[in-house]
Amino acid sequence: MPKTVAIQGIKGSFHHIVSQQYFETAVDVVECRSFQDTVAVVLNKQADMAIMAIENSIAGSIIPNYALIDSNNLQVVGEYYLDVQHHLMALPNQDIYAIKEVHSHPMALLQCAAFFKGYPHIKLVEAKDTAEVAKEIQSNQSHGIAAIASALAAELFGLQILNASIQTIKHNETRFVFVQRLLGQGTTQTLDKASIKFELEHKRGSLAAVLNVLSDCKINVTKIQSLPIIETPWKYAFFVDVTFDEYKSFEKAKQILDLMTTHLKVIGVYKNAK
Amino acid sequence: MPKTVAIQGIKGSFHHIVSQQYFETAVDVVECRSFQDTVAVVLNKQADMAIMAIENSIAGSIIPNYALIDSNNLQVVGEYYLDVQHHLMALPNQDIYAIKEVHSHPMALLQCAAFFKGYPHIKLVEAKDTAEVAKEIQSNQSHGIAAIASALAAELFGLQILNASIQTIKHNETRFVFVQRLLGQGTTQTLDKASIKFELEHKRGSLAAVLNVLSDCKINVTKIQSLPIIETPWKYAFFVDVTFDEYKSFEKAKQILDLMTTHLKVIGVYKNAK
Repeated sequence: MPKTVAIQGIKGSFHHIVSQQYFETAVDVVECRSFQDTVAVVLNKQADMAIMAIENSIAGSIIPNYALIDSNNLQVVGEYYLDVQHHLMALPNQDIYAIKEVHSHPMALLQCAAFFKGYPHIKLVEAKDTAEVAKEIQSNQSHGIAAIASALAAELFGLQILNASIQTIKHNETRFVFVQRLLGQGTTQTLDKASIKFELEHKRGSLAAVLNVLSDCKINVTKIQSLPIIETPWKYAFFVDVTFDEYKSFEKAKQILDLMTTHLKVIGVYKNAK
Repeated sequence: MPKTVAIQGIKGSFHHIVSQQYFETAVDVVECRSFQDTVAVVLNKQADMAIMAIENSIAGSIIPNYALIDSNNLQVVGEYYLDVQHHLMALPNQDIYAIKEVHSHPMALLQCAAFFKGYPHIKLVEAKDTAEVAKEIQSNQSHGIAAIASALAAELFGLQILNASIQTIKHNETRFVFVQRLLGQGTTQTLDKASIKFELEHKRGSLAAVLNVLSDCKINVTKIQSLPIIETPWKYAFFVDVTFDEYKSFEKAKQILDLMTTHLKVIGVYKNAK
């Protein structure tokens, strides 16, 4: 159990909610301006762990976060799925026709775009963070401006929810991972999911051969993502998530992949949250 | 050859540069505020074609653009790779120590983050569009503010380049696709690349089986991307780009995939730009 966790955004953000729901007892949070800052805070030991959104149903993978984890040799030690519900909120005693502008993170605005088609008088303005807008509306007493943020943000910053769950896709899951400094393996026998990275020559059938091995070893692929490798146009990197019933199946597959691929790296072995 | 092309951003943007480099003769451009607007402009026939960034070496795939193409049944008819060079620019006769703030698109700021570590006095501010900042610096005569944008933007808006190519990765390719309304197939015999989408049951080995077929049919996979399908957690969608020497190999693979997968869709068949 970590004592201190770095989150992207401020209290009231979705990362903060994840920190509350995942850990059994309360943890201190370090509020960070960017994902890059959460990594810096973990590396200089101000926090034991960082929480990072890694993919969602609308935008897919957040590739820069994969790169941050990979290039800083962080270890993925867990995952969590949060059903992200976006609420429209403002200072109390205003109705939606009193709202002139909505400020929120571009991703939240994108996820709620259909809702605002019914309110063409509202101007959508991009902001850095969902919860921070809620905080500023309270501290500046900004009438006529609304935020799109979590119920926790409404509660923390004394705003009234005008419309709940305004995102287009009602069941709106985001996957978060927990990362820490590389500490070596603990007991792995009860773990059943892994994130790996490897590189392949761009040769016909090379990826098929790797997937055949995984299938033969009783490993399920739950996610695959190819990325061209900068400066080496004929090589490709793959980020792959796999699940397995027995850790020794994964051990076996890893030994074979080590021979078939280059730069095989286990980014983390952890407990499947699904 | 299209007469009118919708671009994201204004003249001087990287999308504008692509429109100049790809077509043999000059085309009119329709400036759009968002990728969603470029699609709307194509659908209501104000433009013959839209240009969309679809992936880059830093952020990977721009998944919302895949979704826009797919859900609006647009057809990919071509691709282009632009080596995106970011330049720092401001009103003439200022040196970098006179610059207090740099405004640019979050992606441009991310790609140039390492450069600005050497200039901690400069505040980085997120903006909607790279070229628009350049335009505004000129129209507002904003001394002390710099933009990160293209050489074309510096030229169009009379700014001076303080530092050229400030992005961390010097060879910084972005892939753009050209999309139009679904018009049916023209002559396909000379085309050698395709973007397809299909769905699979989440069953061990199902993706390996598909990749084996592609390999057997002499089809190369140049990109693969899995996406969970919202509301059906046990099915996965895949966006796959393939290249081939002969169109009839692709035709054959398509017939087999049609039996092995569900919802097979050919998003476009076009000429490989590599």
